[in-house]
Amino acid sequence: MIISKRLSIHTPKQSCLIDITESIKQIVEMSTIENGQITVFVPHTTAGITINENADPDVLKDMLYGLSKIVPNDVMFKHLEGNSTAHIKSSLMGSSVTLLVVNKQCQLGVWQSVYLCEFDGPRVREYQIQLIGD
Amino acid sequence: MIISKRLSIHTPKQSCLIDITESIKQIVEMSTIENGQITVFVPHTTAGITINENADPDVLKDMLYGLSKIVPNDVMFKHLEGNSTAHIKSSLMGSSVTLLVVNKQCQLGVWQSVYLCEFDGPRVREYQIQLIGD
Amino acid sequence: MIISKRLSIHTPKQSCLIDITESIKQIVEMSTIENGQITVFVPHTTAGITINENADPDVLKDMLYGLSKIVPNDVMFKHLEGNSTAHIKSSLMGSSVTLLVVNKQCQLGVWQSVYLCEFDGPRVREYQIQLIGD
Repeated sequence: MIISKRLSIHTPKQSCLIDITESIKQIVEMSTIENGQITVFVPHTTAGITINENADPDVLKDMLYGLSKIVPNDVMFKHLEGNSTAHIKSSLMGSSVTLLVVNKQCQLGVWQSVYLCEFDGPRVREYQIQLIGD
Repeated sequence: MIISKRLSIHTPKQSCLIDITESIKQIVEMSTIENGQITVFVPHTTAGITINENADPDVLKDMLYGLSKIVPNDVMFKHLEGNSTAHIKSSLMGSSVTLLVVNKQCQLGVWQSVYLCEFDGPRVREYQIQLIGD
Repeated sequence: MIISKRLSIHTPKQSCLIDITESIKQIVEMSTIENGQITVFVPHTTAGITINENADPDVLKDMLYGLSKIVPNDVMFKHLEGNSTAHIKSSLMGSSVTLLVVNKQCQLGVWQSVYLCEFDGPRVREYQIQLIGD
């Protein structure tokens, strides 16, 4: 069985990490699938998706700060929109994550949440969730 | 239903991003699968795969330039082949991407293409596509 | 058919790459699935997973050294546990990899192995393998 759903979200800042875990878990809970996998895909090129800590919000601040140090703006960038750092950060984080479902439970670790990574906001962003399994 | 296909491509430069989107979409179009997912896997350790912008070619130049700044060569590298930066860049980009198929449509965003990332070319590179669904 | 298995491993150092390829191949060999895909998921936020070279161990040393240069510690990090670099490195590597199975063969390249990436050890770490296919 395959269930697909497209959702959208408003990102409030230029760079931010938005916790979308609950919207993913809801699809698992509302389905009859007991075992399988969920893919969450972001159809943008200046936003990505990652999994990281959900306990101390300072981790998220350090991730965004760390990424800004890893990918600083550079006078050699040629793209006229001026958002090349956002494109590079998006590829570093990736455009999808895959979660596993076992015995009706989404197999995230205790400290893990799924974050849509905005690197060129604020904007309305979309993400597509697909649950595949038995 | 599961469809698998192995393709190869010539990469013309030491570092380059090759758009392989059409070869992926063709497999979706030629199959009877209406909903499911496609995984594209690169069986190399100095080449990766990513999704990014297909409109302005300057984005691709900035990505390659940005990656060369993020992962500069270093006198401390020990690997005698001298291509440690290519190994690291490959892991940063990743060895696979997953795309979703919904109602027979590959769910890439308007500005998204899939790129095989060559970091130690020119070479002949392979990639494996697998489409799984109903 | 879907087969899921959770394994654990002891990571001996603060930063290290542990080859878990054999444990993944065993699940393919012991199953009757001929075509499909395997997802390996790491339920931690200071450990990740990647695919890279299995021949020269210097590549692994250079990867860990290179990552330490890409993500240095920084006085501006706020997270009190002091392991923000491990969180960032984990998101750079990612929390899952996907492998393809075609005609009962795991489609890894000749030089590829799957590595659990420890960035805040030593610890006991878990990983979940799921094989889905026909």
